[in-house]
Amino acid sequence: MLTTDPWEDDHLHEECGVFGVYGADGAAALVALGLHALQHRGQEAAGITTFDGRDFHTHRAMGHVAGNFDSDEVIRKLKGEIAIGHNRYSTTGETALRNVQPLFAELSSGGFAICHNGNISNAMTLRRDLVRRGSIFQSTSDTEVIIHLVATSGYRTLLDRFIDALKRVEGAYSLICLTPEGMLACRDPLGVRPLVLGRLGDSYILASETVALDVVGATFLRAVEPGELIIISPRGLRSLRPFEAQRPRPCIFEHVYFSRPDSVVEGNSVYQVRKAIGAELARESAIDADMVVPVPDSGTPAAIGYAQESGLPFELGIIRSHYVGRTFIQPGDQIRNLGVKLKHNANRAMITGKRIVLIDDSIVRGTTSLKIVQMLREAGAEEVHMRIASPPTRHSCYYGVDTPERSKLLAAQMNVEAMRDYIKVDSLAFLSTDGLYRALGEAKRNDNAPQYCDACFTGDYPTRLTDQEDVEIPDQLSLLAERVI
Amino acid sequence: MLTTDPWEDDHLHEECGVFGVYGADGAAALVALGLHALQHRGQEAAGITTFDGRDFHTHRAMGHVAGNFDSDEVIRKLKGEIAIGHNRYSTTGETALRNVQPLFAELSSGGFAICHNGNISNAMTLRRDLVRRGSIFQSTSDTEVIIHLVATSGYRTLLDRFIDALKRVEGAYSLICLTPEGMLACRDPLGVRPLVLGRLGDSYILASETVALDVVGATFLRAVEPGELIIISPRGLRSLRPFEAQRPRPCIFEHVYFSRPDSVVEGNSVYQVRKAIGAELARESAIDADMVVPVPDSGTPAAIGYAQESGLPFELGIIRSHYVGRTFIQPGDQIRNLGVKLKHNANRAMITGKRIVLIDDSIVRGTTSLKIVQMLREAGAEEVHMRIASPPTRHSCYYGVDTPERSKLLAAQMNVEAMRDYIKVDSLAFLSTDGLYRALGEAKRNDNAPQYCDACFTGDYPTRLTDQEDVEIPDQLSLLAERVI
Amino acid sequence: MLTTDPWEDDHLHEECGVFGVYGADGAAALVALGLHALQHRGQEAAGITTFDGRDFHTHRAMGHVAGNFDSDEVIRKLKGEIAIGHNRYSTTGETALRNVQPLFAELSSGGFAICHNGNISNAMTLRRDLVRRGSIFQSTSDTEVIIHLVATSGYRTLLDRFIDALKRVEGAYSLICLTPEGMLACRDPLGVRPLVLGRLGDSYILASETVALDVVGATFLRAVEPGELIIISPRGLRSLRPFEAQRPRPCIFEHVYFSRPDSVVEGNSVYQVRKAIGAELARESAIDADMVVPVPDSGTPAAIGYAQESGLPFELGIIRSHYVGRTFIQPGDQIRNLGVKLKHNANRAMITGKRIVLIDDSIVRGTTSLKIVQMLREAGAEEVHMRIASPPTRHSCYYGVDTPERSKLLAAQMNVEAMRDYIKVDSLAFLSTDGLYRALGEAKRNDNAPQYCDACFTGDYPTRLTDQEDVEIPDQLSLLAERVI
Amino acid sequence: MLTTDPWEDDHLHEECGVFGVYGADGAAALVALGLHALQHRGQEAAGITTFDGRDFHTHRAMGHVAGNFDSDEVIRKLKGEIAIGHNRYSTTGETALRNVQPLFAELSSGGFAICHNGNISNAMTLRRDLVRRGSIFQSTSDTEVIIHLVATSGYRTLLDRFIDALKRVEGAYSLICLTPEGMLACRDPLGVRPLVLGRLGDSYILASETVALDVVGATFLRAVEPGELIIISPRGLRSLRPFEAQRPRPCIFEHVYFSRPDSVVEGNSVYQVRKAIGAELARESAIDADMVVPVPDSGTPAAIGYAQESGLPFELGIIRSHYVGRTFIQPGDQIRNLGVKLKHNANRAMITGKRIVLIDDSIVRGTTSLKIVQMLREAGAEEVHMRIASPPTRHSCYYGVDTPERSKLLAAQMNVEAMRDYIKVDSLAFLSTDGLYRALGEAKRNDNAPQYCDACFTGDYPTRLTDQEDVEIPDQLSLLAERVI
Repeated sequence: MLTTDPWEDDHLHEECGVFGVYGADGAAALVALGLHALQHRGQEAAGITTFDGRDFHTHRAMGHVAGNFDSDEVIRKLKGEIAIGHNRYSTTGETALRNVQPLFAELSSGGFAICHNGNISNAMTLRRDLVRRGSIFQSTSDTEVIIHLVATSGYRTLLDRFIDALKRVEGAYSLICLTPEGMLACRDPLGVRPLVLGRLGDSYILASETVALDVVGATFLRAVEPGELIIISPRGLRSLRPFEAQRPRPCIFEHVYFSRPDSVVEGNSVYQVRKAIGAELARESAIDADMVVPVPDSGTPAAIGYAQESGLPFELGIIRSHYVGRTFIQPGDQIRNLGVKLKHNANRAMITGKRIVLIDDSIVRGTTSLKIVQMLREAGAEEVHMRIASPPTRHSCYYGVDTPERSKLLAAQMNVEAMRDYIKVDSLAFLSTDGLYRALGEAKRNDNAPQYCDACFTGDYPTRLTDQEDVEIPDQLSLLAERVI
Repeated sequence: MLTTDPWEDDHLHEECGVFGVYGADGAAALVALGLHALQHRGQEAAGITTFDGRDFHTHRAMGHVAGNFDSDEVIRKLKGEIAIGHNRYSTTGETALRNVQPLFAELSSGGFAICHNGNISNAMTLRRDLVRRGSIFQSTSDTEVIIHLVATSGYRTLLDRFIDALKRVEGAYSLICLTPEGMLACRDPLGVRPLVLGRLGDSYILASETVALDVVGATFLRAVEPGELIIISPRGLRSLRPFEAQRPRPCIFEHVYFSRPDSVVEGNSVYQVRKAIGAELARESAIDADMVVPVPDSGTPAAIGYAQESGLPFELGIIRSHYVGRTFIQPGDQIRNLGVKLKHNANRAMITGKRIVLIDDSIVRGTTSLKIVQMLREAGAEEVHMRIASPPTRHSCYYGVDTPERSKLLAAQMNVEAMRDYIKVDSLAFLSTDGLYRALGEAKRNDNAPQYCDACFTGDYPTRLTDQEDVEIPDQLSLLAERVI
Repeated sequence: MLTTDPWEDDHLHEECGVFGVYGADGAAALVALGLHALQHRGQEAAGITTFDGRDFHTHRAMGHVAGNFDSDEVIRKLKGEIAIGHNRYSTTGETALRNVQPLFAELSSGGFAICHNGNISNAMTLRRDLVRRGSIFQSTSDTEVIIHLVATSGYRTLLDRFIDALKRVEGAYSLICLTPEGMLACRDPLGVRPLVLGRLGDSYILASETVALDVVGATFLRAVEPGELIIISPRGLRSLRPFEAQRPRPCIFEHVYFSRPDSVVEGNSVYQVRKAIGAELARESAIDADMVVPVPDSGTPAAIGYAQESGLPFELGIIRSHYVGRTFIQPGDQIRNLGVKLKHNANRAMITGKRIVLIDDSIVRGTTSLKIVQMLREAGAEEVHMRIASPPTRHSCYYGVDTPERSKLLAAQMNVEAMRDYIKVDSLAFLSTDGLYRALGEAKRNDNAPQYCDACFTGDYPTRLTDQEDVEIPDQLSLLAERVI
Repeated sequence: MLTTDPWEDDHLHEECGVFGVYGADGAAALVALGLHALQHRGQEAAGITTFDGRDFHTHRAMGHVAGNFDSDEVIRKLKGEIAIGHNRYSTTGETALRNVQPLFAELSSGGFAICHNGNISNAMTLRRDLVRRGSIFQSTSDTEVIIHLVATSGYRTLLDRFIDALKRVEGAYSLICLTPEGMLACRDPLGVRPLVLGRLGDSYILASETVALDVVGATFLRAVEPGELIIISPRGLRSLRPFEAQRPRPCIFEHVYFSRPDSVVEGNSVYQVRKAIGAELARESAIDADMVVPVPDSGTPAAIGYAQESGLPFELGIIRSHYVGRTFIQPGDQIRNLGVKLKHNANRAMITGKRIVLIDDSIVRGTTSLKIVQMLREAGAEEVHMRIASPPTRHSCYYGVDTPERSKLLAAQMNVEAMRDYIKVDSLAFLSTDGLYRALGEAKRNDNAPQYCDACFTGDYPTRLTDQEDVEIPDQLSLLAERVI
């Protein structure tokens, strides 16, 4: 079987996008549009829950937003002026519908729906304790832990129970919740995953990225701040700070790859940061060549920045197909590198006899870099110099990003020279960590108090990794023992 | 819209059938066959859960067993030698997949799957208390209460927790549960709903009716007794009596209509009881006529008994279609009684000019009796004398049978003469209560200690009806406030 | 794989039912109801074509009428007051949608839709000639030959072309066609397959059987006569006799099995004929026994007739399941005769220790008779005497009935005593041919000019069998060489 | 309803892509890959027919190649070493499966399958004559005319009949046909639509574009020449010239928009031609600005060429979403230009306060140009100067391209200044016709004998337009009168 998405296998992946609307006609339709704009943050499943003042309405589906949430029939049933939605990229084989968010529970206070971008790093430990007390889980999702903590909290009001629950979880979370009393949104104290606030007429909008505000025509107000809890109710918007203040450490990889280039993340234009990265890369590791070629589309802004800084022409040496399927049958042994060509094809007439600077955003396993380079060589490229728009990816992420285990990360296994040899390029260079911070407008990384979470590059994790340490958690808790077929 | 199943609307309905296999190759395939044989006990949904010694495997589907559980692909994934299954007839509009049994939960003791035939008559009251304590329900099913009671029980072993849970529920239940330690089966102390035990080679089989044993080639061992708890594990079969002894009161309607005529229920052949009912009816309310005609197929055995006792010929004056759909579009106003004819058509050549004794098992709303009689008249019947093979159905059932509210029960609204007038028959007679007991081999009903639950005829309910009395239960608890679309 | 329809495999099968409506509001809905009532004549596929005065609208689907033609959405699109429909039972593996009728073609005279019950016995020969002349076939159906003959006829008017086409075909056909000028219906000169005419308000109805008239509330006017061509147009109904007169020979098996018992075929009540058959059988081959048991439902009317004539009690010794699927997975080797039990189960309590007269309508392969008898013996029957309500089926049908090849017909391979031995019954008797004619009200079969087509019993075919004789037809013509997957 | 594909509505569209393989293991899998690479030439439906030496196997489906032709199950059934396939972009509402190619017919010579890129401009006239003679059409496709001409030709051999048929058709066709004797490929005498020949090991490959050869790893041999008929059989490849020689006039729009940039068409790299077009445009209509922004992706190569020639920076001022659905529900009135933003979003941080040269390949209706410009203005662009990489599109195409009628073509309704005003840009310029010819390496257009078909720009059609002239064709012939629902 051939995947037409070879690149997808060789990237880190954001696991989720969230979007919420408070107080708008056709709230569900707005959420569908917002989730469509956030589709790059999670492609496996999507869901929307609305509240019409009396009932909650939910639709969840495997697959993309388009195709599942674009029919009049579905949207009409999602009644109400308050709505939240979620795109999911699954980290495990378990992609059953019951893990698709929004998760919902009927609490003694009424319905409670939740969307979560991030990952609770002590979820297994908490789950084991909850099950011992008699809680019954519906899913294998770490997010469900939050609901059970709310349900079993000793506090009285829903808000107190919610804060009580959040104080017991560790890790990364940007949350949007729907209750009969209003919408709750919260970003973890480190602000690892993004969350922004916008306004559309009289409605409030919450979204993972500003691009989702643009698409629905909303105005960007501000980022939800790390550690901030926002309550939107008929009485308006309130902001609380229930956690002890901490130095924020937002995820640096949002700028490298996760976020869309037309988003503004933590005050920076993603496109301009990526161009600045390309310029840094041109300065750090210049090379004599005929043209700069991006791996489309993830390498394109950095390649434009590299070309402008170096004076080399920017050329589309690789053409990307817009028609992507999951897999094709391998027709026979005679065809090499077929998978890669389904998505990317060498622009042979442009490439032959040329010395190429090839720009990509990162190297994860390296398997597809290898194939791309081989494709360029077969198309007649004379030299291929690879430049990577981030430092080597050496560590797994535990905050809501799908990373292969360390043994699969090429940069965790070999040094740059060995990688160059493996990928079979004439030269290979990565951006330096300080170069990355410079592109973000910092002088350099502050090693004592890093400005960002860069654990995938440095191994410097900003929280405890309780589940990783807790050797006691029995296997049966890691997944429901029921396989629904 | 026309239903081709007009009869179905005018019968009481058993809500469930259960079937379990312990220790057989291809256990899931056996359960599929058993459920197929029990399809008459629930047609809206079905499910099977298996245990392979490590994992539980579940498949649930809306619709019939055939079509959902007959593919090699489905059965092959339901691995293991232990399996339980369930047919569901829904009482409410809420037929979402999450209510389809077996229900499953991951308890601290491991997986726990449950199939339930019956109805917990204090479920709402228990649910309210559990939610207040922090339990989160996945379904609107009364059965889920049992699981949460097990999960939150203060006892240590799973068996003790299970018994503790059952002691807190009221009502009717024939249960089969699957746990990593073995299979648990239990019948409530009154034995309202049936449950039988069989043997197939080295395996044990549990089923709602003996017909399901026949179909898989199993030998009938005995009925599970009222109040008996059976544990089947690698150590063999054990029988416990955890409840205080009570006088059993099995459901009398199983003999009238629910069970298949080829089953043996509480020691009696259903077919022979129904023939005896017909004979009683012929003696109690004889009439001069040309032939005895059953409403097929529910009235057929009683009509044969009536014909043999009376000496009148038994004739198929109404022909039933074997091809049944749910609904058809009404083509126009010119057609009367169309719905009824889709399923039953008068055998005009046989009927014209004849005096007919028409036999049906019961009258619920009376709407279709009315249409059938009109159809016979339009086909030329000279006289129609209706004879009903049970007493008037005057009361709702709270033990797992789908009954309309009392205001819809014809016999709760009018006396027999008024019913005769409404249905437009020349004469109408019901079987007497004592006649029904006689057909079952009793001298008469023992009014001080009735041998059966006959509440639908007499209003004499054998348990408290806590949820009916508890006016405090808030509406929001009766159904999840989330509508999954 | 187990079929739950073992019986279906051991019956001759009518291949089609047809139904037409001229001039009624909601014509498509009426056709859907009519086809539902004729579902027993063909279960594999169904189709409806309507004409709204301008356009033809068609829906075809694999499967039953219910489920495919009962939705408002489908019926609403089938606009117009004129409509025809067809149920199909396929004779070959080729059940692709393009063979599902009504077939449609755009002729120079406009659209032309056709429904056909029967079989053209020189279709292959005609097809070969048409293809040589440049005609391109869309299907492998013999019916399409008629359309191409109309399209290429040298005559000018559509009516003349239609008659020209029919004069060139041999075999059996009851046709209903839809054209912009009106509806055409025709029955072959022998009248092998049935076709009746009815009236509903101002509309005309055409149907394979009277039961379909009953279901839509139409009045039965008369049978379309053998060799009659009916034209229904805005000018009313006209009847033509375009063929040379021949002695009719309608199919005798319609009375034995194909037609529904509540239909009237060629002036006889099917139910009463079958009872008369049972009575003949009781006289021809009486036996001392305890009860008469039908194989349900095909043997039931004959069993009632046998019981009434013999004085033995009629009993439901075998119970038929109403829930039928196609196949189930065989769970293991320990279970014998499983397939048969899915559909029919012995009423053990009734059977044990009894001497049984078992009535079925016919024996085709004998495989399921064998299993039924074994099932009765395992349930404890002391003696089983089988009585068959027709003569031995020894010859294939070429007129629209699905018969196995002769080598599979049990009665073509052995005599009655050998069959008795094979089926393992205590005695076996078939109805005599004259007995069958007597049940139909004839004194006896007129061997010089038989009153019916009884070729399946006698081998006396009423037409030439051109395709059987024409050894020249190349294989490639028997089926399209394109397999559409 | 909002389409996420607003652009698609405002482009001319190639209607088809074709691909054939002769003599390779897994031929169907190769065709699936080739069609995937040609998906941009037709997105509504796809089909593959294979020949295994005995039978033809076909699968057709609405939708993309991926999703329909990537499963092992489908490909395994498409047996054989010879295969042809087709992508279809429908011009009318009629997209029923029976119009999906390959079309297939059983001729007297055996099976015949055909794939066609182009349009027969006298199809209606020929069809009317064929129907009058008795031919029955299965589809509304112009391509089916060719099959009936072959079927009814007076010549004897299949090859002669095929040539006879082609001599009677007018218009544009690149054909690949499958017969039991081998594969036939043919390009019309003008060579309007492209067709290329490649080699993969011992197999021959035919494809609409070279990119499809690249993807399967085949070597590009040469273009099939205008008027050339190629026969590939077990005896090898033969080339015939059955038509009178004509001056070729390949479609010039293939270079502007239809073909993929990584294809080589008529000897020119499409990417390099488009860059040359951009450079011509920069020379013809220079403007002072801050950056060059393409409408992605169709304007990108020309924008790179424009930027390189002008010295202005190339920037991604508009970001294209990779996740495309068909439609979304409009959530309310407050949101303007929503449709356009689902697919393209302004890169606000880059755009604000800037003077932009906006490059697109063509303007058809102008509706989406209007919206894009408005989107850029709302994002803060100071000036927008639109430059179009082709001359004004003023005429419909009758050779297999989906063009709106002339009244919908903006350039047919107004001059450039009026268009500038309508689209609301600061300046607007189109490429000159001679500029386009220069980018293709010609000195200028030869008006006496134009080197290309440029009728969409000039109205100079290279063939008769018989169907347009023939006022006699009755309406009923333009579409089958049967609507299959």
